[in-house]
Amino acid sequence: MGELSLYLIRHGIAIEREIFAGPDSERHLTSQGEKKTLQMAERLVDLGMSWDLILSSSFLRAIQTSEILVNAGLADEIQLHEALAPGGRFGDWLQWLDQWRLQERLGLGLVGHEPDLSQWAELLMWGSYQGVLELKKAGVIGLKLPPHDPVGQSTLFWLTPPRLL
Amino acid sequence: MGELSLYLIRHGIAIEREIFAGPDSERHLTSQGEKKTLQMAERLVDLGMSWDLILSSSFLRAIQTSEILVNAGLADEIQLHEALAPGGRFGDWLQWLDQWRLQERLGLGLVGHEPDLSQWAELLMWGSYQGVLELKKAGVIGLKLPPHDPVGQSTLFWLTPPRLL
Repeated sequence: MGELSLYLIRHGIAIEREIFAGPDSERHLTSQGEKKTLQMAERLVDLGMSWDLILSSSFLRAIQTSEILVNAGLADEIQLHEALAPGGRFGDWLQWLDQWRLQERLGLGLVGHEPDLSQWAELLMWGSYQGVLELKKAGVIGLKLPPHDPVGQSTLFWLTPPRLL
Repeated sequence: MGELSLYLIRHGIAIEREIFAGPDSERHLTSQGEKKTLQMAERLVDLGMSWDLILSSSFLRAIQTSEILVNAGLADEIQLHEALAPGGRFGDWLQWLDQWRLQERLGLGLVGHEPDLSQWAELLMWGSYQGVLELKKAGVIGLKLPPHDPVGQSTLFWLTPPRLL
């Protein structure tokens, strides 16, 4: 099992909670959110990225973001995992990751929510969480994970808001 | 005194220690190093950046990098500070910063060396250092510093190698 490049991507701009009548899990991307997410996705493809899988929150705004990433050519497959929903369990995802990495894997994209994603990134780097990473909507965090026991052992090689991409 | 955007920039690719006859402080950028640094600088300008000052290590490869940044239009002025030389003192720079920020300042670029720059970034974010940030040559770290006492209180909004810029 080699090093893994992990990309944490926050969903694009969605219709605001205050003006959407349905449940939070069904808030959808705005047209501006779709556009900016597509620009981000195309830029990642231009930069040569290609992942084995996108693991996504099942919330609609995350699924829509994942679909834009797949349609742009970043990955062929989307899987949903409840650990990526807001407030999901980091430990559950770690268990999933251990299994998934039994086969040789080079790149994984996670699509989810804040503050969870930047919290996970901090846990992977430092083993603790202080809330010092700023992950904008449609922003990206890139981490390198060692073959085993990534918590507190991973390194950050990329963090970018879409406007600086 | 408002929030400050701080950009930490590692010098570009320099002639290797093993094949350069002079002292480390006089190692110069290679032609590839100049080219990649210029591309990085032009991209930062395209992204709308403009800083009040570039504070640089006095080592030649850092000065050359700073000059490329100034010539591209990122700042008008370069100052040298010994805290930015390899192994320089973070505390000395913090003292300088407190003074410099007495006037309203919005953006500061630091040009220096590794592992110092990524160590400083970690100290500003977490107040301690574990070596988990990867700063490539001609790479950039962007931090937001609060008005006072930035150590352990700053947030990371950007970290990028030149190839993902």
